Amino acid sequence: MSGESRFLTLLRLLANDPAARGLQDDVAVLELGVARLVLTSDTMVEGVHFIPTDPPADIGWKLGAVNLSDLAAKGARPKGCLLNYALSGDDGWDAAFLEGLGEALSRHAMPLLGGDTVRMPAGAPRSFSLTAIGEATGPIPARRGARVGDRLYVTGPVGDAGVGLELLRADPGAMGPLVDAYRRPRPRLAEGALLSPHVHAMMDVSDGLLIDAARMAQASDLAIVIDHIPLSTALEAARGASTATQISAACAGDDYELLFALPAALRPPIRAIPVGHFLDGTGLSLIIDGVSVPLPDRLGWEHD
Amino acid sequence: MSGESRFLTLLRLLANDPAARGLQDDVAVLELGVARLVLTSDTMVEGVHFIPTDPPADIGWKLGAVNLSDLAAKGARPKGCLLNYALSGDDGWDAAFLEGLGEALSRHAMPLLGGDTVRMPAGAPRSFSLTAIGEATGPIPARRGARVGDRLYVTGPVGDAGVGLELLRADPGAMGPLVDAYRRPRPRLAEGALLSPHVHAMMDVSDGLLIDAARMAQASDLAIVIDHIPLSTALEAARGASTATQISAACAGDDYELLFALPAALRPPIRAIPVGHFLDGTGLSLIIDGVSVPLPDRLGWEHD
Repeated sequence: MSGESRFLTLLRLLANDPAARGLQDDVAVLELGVARLVLTSDTMVEGVHFIPTDPPADIGWKLGAVNLSDLAAKGARPKGCLLNYALSGDDGWDAAFLEGLGEALSRHAMPLLGGDTVRMPAGAPRSFSLTAIGEATGPIPARRGARVGDRLYVTGPVGDAGVGLELLRADPGAMGPLVDAYRRPRPRLAEGALLSPHVHAMMDVSDGLLIDAARMAQASDLAIVIDHIPLSTALEAARGASTATQISAACAGDDYELLFALPAALRPPIRAIPVGHFLDGTGLSLIIDGVSVPLPDRLGWEHD
Repeated sequence: MSGESRFLTLLRLLANDPAARGLQDDVAVLELGVARLVLTSDTMVEGVHFIPTDPPADIGWKLGAVNLSDLAAKGARPKGCLLNYALSGDDGWDAAFLEGLGEALSRHAMPLLGGDTVRMPAGAPRSFSLTAIGEATGPIPARRGARVGDRLYVTGPVGDAGVGLELLRADPGAMGPLVDAYRRPRPRLAEGALLSPHVHAMMDVSDGLLIDAARMAQASDLAIVIDHIPLSTALEAARGASTATQISAACAGDDYELLFALPAALRPPIRAIPVGHFLDGTGLSLIIDGVSVPLPDRLGWEHD
């Protein structure tokens, strides 16, 4: 067991309140009177979650967006957030970060309510956390809950952000829709609110379609077949649509589309792309262009 | 203006929701239906907020305690918290940290609900954040609100933690009540809940009695006279009670006692020590053993 797994095991022992949902569900759900709070927190570390050459305004945007995306996957309305910020020692950098964070927050009606600002010792990597509080507007979907025969849908194409990051690694000056997908992901709050009353399970695709679909299936005690990998026209223009490209897109992280399970008899209330279906059993199977293909060694980004 | 001040100015422009209280008040207060949430977050960084030789269980305890202390100062009942943890690369260290954090949380009925665990690049300083959610049980005192003639009280002696830290710097194996005060501060939750219906203003003493009293006076648009520095018997035994020792105790941080303003006609509902009184005007005056003394250059720990 890795150090991280051991730590998470200890953490689960400690987080034994039902509101913690066993730390299995991206968010906590705290009931206070009639209000149901949806709580989530994400930390971003330089060199781990972003590259040092990323523009600070985009890093700020992304910190806001990834937290908002967790609320979106629960159909929750943003109510407030707290920022933990480590000063970088560069005033211009810090100001640009706040500008980007502020854009993401105001665009999605998320008030910044407080937090803590610290200085780091010289040479320390930049790191930031945002803790977001949402209010449930209806049923709160979980990762678990998919049923046999349910269809799996995603709210948009996958893999754009992954190719955007590749383009930036090759050329830090790269631009265009794929780079934008990496730097300025859009949390699907409106979609999440419309979907949450109908879905059997929902989560955001943060670590890759394959790994996140496998997690939903495992949490639901079912097997999942993925039989379609939706690619954007921008991705096809840059990389084509070979089997290898499709697999790569399905294993790339940072998409922040919503992934949800819906009974086969229902049509999604919003535009969404069917990508698979749930079966009795366990495990993940992959079919590309009608042909069953072996799973890649690495299904996505495994960080928790 | 320092980088930190400039950043905080930008942050205040962004945090323009009334629930943020202008980022002037240690906590945010978010109303959700009839529930009133008290929100606070603290980050601790190795080499800044703790020393590398501090036992990890004590660092974990302290992260819990300092957040609980912010809730105590608002008379709030703990409802849940989220942990942002940077793995240290040392499983035993991480486990001990969690044990200490778990002790502080369970001792004060604070459920751990979630958070995020990340790996840091090798060599990065350890850092952790905890975001705490409390529920107000009555009026929520602010830093501001003290009135002319109010007495200023503190719930216990000051300076113990500061001397504890000095002892540890001289000898990392030092032990005793002063070291305990530094390593295992006790949040005054019961006291805060009993005080909050009666006080005109309240905050915890985290940065030093003088600087925190001056902040309360400034927020209340008043002047404050401090005419008593309460020392513990342990501190007097270690350092005596000279004017210099008293000033040093009044400028030391990490006490986590509650500081509150009460009308002169009221007796505190709990045991507390009168340390001063509010006057028309501005500024801080210091009287020690009946003699007016000049203020030290540094009133306490200025980190925000």
